[in-house]
Amino acid sequence: MTKYEVGVLGAGQLGRMLAQAGQSIGVHCRFFDPALNACAAEFGPQTKARFDDLSALEEFCSGVTVATTEFENVPAPSAAHVEKLVRFFPSVRALEVSQDRLSEKTLFRSLGIDTPKFAAIDSLADLQEAAALFGYPAILKTRRLGYDGKGQVRINSATELEAAWATSGAGSILESFVTFDREISIIGVRSSTGEIVFYPLAENLHRDGILRRSIAPAESIPETILKSAQLALHALMNELSYVGVLALELFVTGDRITANEIAPRVHNTGHWTIDGAITSQFENHLRAGLGLPLGSAAAKNKSVMYNILGTVPDLSVFKEFPEAHLHLYGKVPAPNRKIGHLTIVQGSDLERFHRALSIADVLFLG
Amino acid sequence: MTKYEVGVLGAGQLGRMLAQAGQSIGVHCRFFDPALNACAAEFGPQTKARFDDLSALEEFCSGVTVATTEFENVPAPSAAHVEKLVRFFPSVRALEVSQDRLSEKTLFRSLGIDTPKFAAIDSLADLQEAAALFGYPAILKTRRLGYDGKGQVRINSATELEAAWATSGAGSILESFVTFDREISIIGVRSSTGEIVFYPLAENLHRDGILRRSIAPAESIPETILKSAQLALHALMNELSYVGVLALELFVTGDRITANEIAPRVHNTGHWTIDGAITSQFENHLRAGLGLPLGSAAAKNKSVMYNILGTVPDLSVFKEFPEAHLHLYGKVPAPNRKIGHLTIVQGSDLERFHRALSIADVLFLG
Repeated sequence: MTKYEVGVLGAGQLGRMLAQAGQSIGVHCRFFDPALNACAAEFGPQTKARFDDLSALEEFCSGVTVATTEFENVPAPSAAHVEKLVRFFPSVRALEVSQDRLSEKTLFRSLGIDTPKFAAIDSLADLQEAAALFGYPAILKTRRLGYDGKGQVRINSATELEAAWATSGAGSILESFVTFDREISIIGVRSSTGEIVFYPLAENLHRDGILRRSIAPAESIPETILKSAQLALHALMNELSYVGVLALELFVTGDRITANEIAPRVHNTGHWTIDGAITSQFENHLRAGLGLPLGSAAAKNKSVMYNILGTVPDLSVFKEFPEAHLHLYGKVPAPNRKIGHLTIVQGSDLERFHRALSIADVLFLG
Repeated sequence: MTKYEVGVLGAGQLGRMLAQAGQSIGVHCRFFDPALNACAAEFGPQTKARFDDLSALEEFCSGVTVATTEFENVPAPSAAHVEKLVRFFPSVRALEVSQDRLSEKTLFRSLGIDTPKFAAIDSLADLQEAAALFGYPAILKTRRLGYDGKGQVRINSATELEAAWATSGAGSILESFVTFDREISIIGVRSSTGEIVFYPLAENLHRDGILRRSIAPAESIPETILKSAQLALHALMNELSYVGVLALELFVTGDRITANEIAPRVHNTGHWTIDGAITSQFENHLRAGLGLPLGSAAAKNKSVMYNILGTVPDLSVFKEFPEAHLHLYGKVPAPNRKIGHLTIVQGSDLERFHRALSIADVLFLG
């Protein structure tokens, strides 16, 4: 009965949840990933090969209707090779842009989207000059392959410049430090027919660069901020001829937004949509790539999602969370590893909802 | 990571949806079914053997934590054999009772639950006597193995008695005809720890004995009816020492309910719970059998579920239903075969919701 076979580059939890979303609509996923214990492999065949193994990619693509990616660091030449063989989404350019913080912020600026001040750093002199201009604190980041707060160093004063340079080196970017009130994200979907839907804003809490909690729809956000966020994401999707789910992380300061980064894929701050939105980000990503009509991105109820890091909770945890949805990824536990998430959906009993949240805050925010 | 292995007797769509519900909570299902193209087999290994193959059942049970069933017509001796080997739910007695309309209605009566008048029919004389007592119309049904309206004949007058007797024969039951205003069902879950939750009532529409649409929560149902339905189901679950999901189908006439039948398993009138309730009937059935805390059975929003019979719809159908969840079962299409269902969830745009329902009524009620 399966009508569509979707090839996914990467076979982690995002691929796994894409496959689950496809199960009921006749969409089957298969995966390309060199990893040995990839958790998506439970839901579709995995081609175990390196991303630069072009002949393996060719064989992989021969069996699929369309291809997509579940992580942005697929080498661009590999994605470009895939794109020659089969319809690939979101797009090679979207990957290239998001793989390099300098290109990303340059794109933001070109579209009139506010970002922190930034400068390319390829020498100590570059760093000294930019830091003097931006002031302190400032953040020195690797331009490529940083994730979950890795590859970042905060510089608090001029005396720390040389040490920071020593840990990063050429191919970095210096960003001014943004003092923000709140962190939010917006997730949009653009289909290959140009149709666009936006999910409600999520308010996010990070610890040590790792997302710990998302609340959606975010509360008490001025309409102007929602509108600005939608306009920024709309501009990015159009500029990139984007197809699929695109996430934009933003800082909110007063009534202003500052773009932090984009993720050209389904996104951790959208996991609440599985249980809390009419159509999940995973299903809409598949629909977008297959040219199918998009589903409503409206929230059903307020949802709060917690990442589960490190260890698998005993299922007796449900006792505290009668209104929760647990999503375990079938991954081998390891410290700070995202091995699942829990989404608590607001029911009619507000007191119970708030009690559950206060227990979850203690359990999962630590 | 899987902590629980659940053995399911039967591998149809109900087994498939049980397996899907288990995926995210570390519960894996395996199936026992003689069928060749069983649609649950996509989600877990299937033992292809006859239900009376006791050694195959023994091997099957050796690999599971608990066992359950997705259809009520598993031969009771097979279920009893399974129960000797491994914890089995809901219970052999619940299967036995629901496999025989006479036992079922006798149980209803013994618990003070109203049912249509009924009498065991094993001869033409039995039939003539009962029909004279009940009046016309009356329904002659096979006591065993009837489903979706099969094995039933309506008798409109005494002149039809002999013909009806000829088509059914001994082992039948005559029931008085109930003139009802509405058909509803209630689904409850009882865990092995005795915890009980009830889903909101669903209002159901059947055509030719096949469920076509369920609306949940059912609208404008007097509180007394809800309470009576819960009390009846509560009594049944306690009497049967029931574990898992139990469905009770009821006729509503004025402010009275009349019990039609029970289904000792997850039920078609509860499919809306996947998208419309905080915890689905499938997840709660698994939790109940595993002794885990039950999840909230509250509705998130109003939902309307349509069965999809016969042919797989093109996915462009989503264009009419931006707030719908499609569930295809991966079954080979055949006339009047249940091959999927569509649940339309009410969003904030009431006009859009009602437009979708009017289109779906035309498409799926035909």
